[in-house]
Amino acid sequence: MEKKCSAVIIGVGPEQGLGASLASYFAGQGLHVFIAGRSDDKLQAIAEKIRQKGGSATPVVADATSELEVARLFNKIQSDGYRVDIAAYNVDSNIPSPLLETDAETFTTLWQQNCLGAFFFGKEAVKAMKDKQKGTVFFTGATASLRAKPPFTAFATAKAGLRALAQGMAREFSPQGIHVVHTIIDGVIDGDRAKNQFPDYVKAKGKDGLLQLDAIAETYWAIHQQHPSAWTHELDLRPFKEPF
Amino acid sequence: MEKKCSAVIIGVGPEQGLGASLASYFAGQGLHVFIAGRSDDKLQAIAEKIRQKGGSATPVVADATSELEVARLFNKIQSDGYRVDIAAYNVDSNIPSPLLETDAETFTTLWQQNCLGAFFFGKEAVKAMKDKQKGTVFFTGATASLRAKPPFTAFATAKAGLRALAQGMAREFSPQGIHVVHTIIDGVIDGDRAKNQFPDYVKAKGKDGLLQLDAIAETYWAIHQQHPSAWTHELDLRPFKEPF
Amino acid sequence: MEKKCSAVIIGVGPEQGLGASLASYFAGQGLHVFIAGRSDDKLQAIAEKIRQKGGSATPVVADATSELEVARLFNKIQSDGYRVDIAAYNVDSNIPSPLLETDAETFTTLWQQNCLGAFFFGKEAVKAMKDKQKGTVFFTGATASLRAKPPFTAFATAKAGLRALAQGMAREFSPQGIHVVHTIIDGVIDGDRAKNQFPDYVKAKGKDGLLQLDAIAETYWAIHQQHPSAWTHELDLRPFKEPF
Amino acid sequence: MEKKCSAVIIGVGPEQGLGASLASYFAGQGLHVFIAGRSDDKLQAIAEKIRQKGGSATPVVADATSELEVARLFNKIQSDGYRVDIAAYNVDSNIPSPLLETDAETFTTLWQQNCLGAFFFGKEAVKAMKDKQKGTVFFTGATASLRAKPPFTAFATAKAGLRALAQGMAREFSPQGIHVVHTIIDGVIDGDRAKNQFPDYVKAKGKDGLLQLDAIAETYWAIHQQHPSAWTHELDLRPFKEPF
Repeated sequence: MEKKCSAVIIGVGPEQGLGASLASYFAGQGLHVFIAGRSDDKLQAIAEKIRQKGGSATPVVADATSELEVARLFNKIQSDGYRVDIAAYNVDSNIPSPLLETDAETFTTLWQQNCLGAFFFGKEAVKAMKDKQKGTVFFTGATASLRAKPPFTAFATAKAGLRALAQGMAREFSPQGIHVVHTIIDGVIDGDRAKNQFPDYVKAKGKDGLLQLDAIAETYWAIHQQHPSAWTHELDLRPFKEPF
Repeated sequence: MEKKCSAVIIGVGPEQGLGASLASYFAGQGLHVFIAGRSDDKLQAIAEKIRQKGGSATPVVADATSELEVARLFNKIQSDGYRVDIAAYNVDSNIPSPLLETDAETFTTLWQQNCLGAFFFGKEAVKAMKDKQKGTVFFTGATASLRAKPPFTAFATAKAGLRALAQGMAREFSPQGIHVVHTIIDGVIDGDRAKNQFPDYVKAKGKDGLLQLDAIAETYWAIHQQHPSAWTHELDLRPFKEPF
Repeated sequence: MEKKCSAVIIGVGPEQGLGASLASYFAGQGLHVFIAGRSDDKLQAIAEKIRQKGGSATPVVADATSELEVARLFNKIQSDGYRVDIAAYNVDSNIPSPLLETDAETFTTLWQQNCLGAFFFGKEAVKAMKDKQKGTVFFTGATASLRAKPPFTAFATAKAGLRALAQGMAREFSPQGIHVVHTIIDGVIDGDRAKNQFPDYVKAKGKDGLLQLDAIAETYWAIHQQHPSAWTHELDLRPFKEPF
Repeated sequence: MEKKCSAVIIGVGPEQGLGASLASYFAGQGLHVFIAGRSDDKLQAIAEKIRQKGGSATPVVADATSELEVARLFNKIQSDGYRVDIAAYNVDSNIPSPLLETDAETFTTLWQQNCLGAFFFGKEAVKAMKDKQKGTVFFTGATASLRAKPPFTAFATAKAGLRALAQGMAREFSPQGIHVVHTIIDGVIDGDRAKNQFPDYVKAKGKDGLLQLDAIAETYWAIHQQHPSAWTHELDLRPFKEPF
């Protein structure tokens, strides 16, 4: 029996966040969505909202930095009878920290969240897609993926690693039909996190100066739709007003 | 009176070529297309084909390396009552040549075709889009835009210049609402040129190993559709089988 | 009292290896060298050789991936009455591994050795140099620092992280007089490791096709000698025959 | 009979400029220097100064953008009985210009000076070095070689082309023993040009904030001295205080 289509997104947190937005968008395109993150409450709320809009969603509590929990997530997808069409690694953990004040734990945690978890997730995604030789794996990067600037050196170190992981995976798995994509989100996303963490910045930028959640999701979807003869492996996304 | 929508593509040559394909695709989306190139015969044939499929097209003979002819092209668009929604610079002229065998004329011609013409075209496109503060300018790049390898050093020199032009224009005009995009076509396009110039290579790659014309056009269209809060300025396009 | 000059190199292993070569070269320039690595036997032999050539060296057993041992190394330098003029992070650990066969331990170990240890070492080096506002910190990178290719994706992930670390540190500490340098060793070093691990490759390349140890050391020294008004933060080093 | 050693530098202008400084430094190392530029007066003065310091120099009036004059320069070197050990292309012509205000002449002139002339010069240099399979060719780049920012888009377009030229030449001629180097001068050189063109900026930076001429020349010399088993093809040079 043909398995049902699905997308899996890890790093789903706030309702107004990229993870939730991708999930909602993919659900709107007819995919069942598995949404994974650390907070059951948030996942339940997001799943409920997706259902209210006519989509279907399964929340799965999983910490991206745990190999076991990532494996369980993909096992659940399989045992529920779904194949994976899209797998999006959306964990984006950032802590500004001058280098001499950065301790080993912070440096390591940022790497685990932005890079090691992506390795766990990417591996499972590829395994889930291998038989069908089809599917798209997204890794969400940032400006820091390309440039390391203090006080974001530790973050940039992790994000540069993520970018290399995505590039190596694209080279290894594209010929097997698996589309691996690294996005460079260059700017601030208009979501709950920015509103809570730097409200003044958000205000100063104005609505058009922040990346709209739906706008990002649309491009992810367009990239997923690409014909294999013309695949994109890396692209930037930034507000038109953003200096770069 | 509101002007009518249009796209203008320069560097339209063979019927099975990227210029013709972009024109046809944009026409299919409801835009009137101005198709510019050096061969009136080819342009007429392509325009006729677009009309047969229900689109509308105006062929304009213009050499991209002539500032005057590029200006005339845009003047015609304006005097015909059209605004420019999409302007695509699609001239891609390549001559393999070991450096010591490359003469000044070849070096200069490659630059004029791949870079100077883009400057003429880009300037006119921006002028045409400025009042509406809206529109997308595409510059079609190549693998050589990122890496210079003999015997393609002269070509790479020109394409690297084109990439810088696109980047500088993106920085200058994005805040004014004009979306400037540089694409990196990394692979061989499944069109007339490849079939005539290196038929064995085309055969060896197999159909899936070449960039399909429509597949490229779809991504150009998706990028044109992006919301200004999440614009892409550079992306690669390559066949899934292509080593990179 | 003025402290005595020294260089500290971590990742010193085989006698014919880059760590040993840098140590020997710096000793030849009159610096006392602290040579750190995991094998006491090897360190003793290298120190002895340096002394025979008229230099002075202190071997210190230290695992670069241990924050504690790295701290002890720098404490010893200080308590021995030396300041640090050059600190070179020379750990270069590589394991080819297709992604699906790469386990969490391999992925993590490569990162600890190529990147986390560099963070420990870089921090201590900066602390040791801060008062004098003077000194050079080298991080030895590889081709994979710039490009991730299977089966070296895990290695490239770690090396890309190292590069970002070096770049962020250069931006943060250059204005404080500390010169941070990332080298891209693009090719195979003519040392014990290559001879043991891929003797056929070494033979095929010929002597001129491999990076000579002294040649690399000379450039490190030239970069250390640079006037602060014209510092290099990144440079490649490759055999003239090496395709790239 | 063995030919005598020489260096040739084109783009020699002000006495306190990089061209003059490279010439003086190379002369100090025992090479006869051919100094080429457009102003006979300036060349004579610089040659005289070099002679006063015990060096030997031949001034040659030549416009780098003239293929003929560049060829004549190299013919003179040969007929004078010299081989070319170092050839440095040091033309650096910059005009800030918003894109819509940039005319075809400005755009073309910048390209001719920064890129086309480098092609003429590079070709002749390689021809002069080919028999001995030895020599170093320098191309002086700038921050804009890597990033195009308005109002320097035209300049960046030309410099990006120059960088590609250098890279392609490095790939083509390194295996033949010719060392091709691209330098990225990231900052302002402490010379006559800056003092005349933006005196306030020079003052604000302080002496340590500008690239010292001798400091740059030292690194060029060190790179020329590199053993062919460990050649650098690209490196940046920037004041330690320079943000980047």
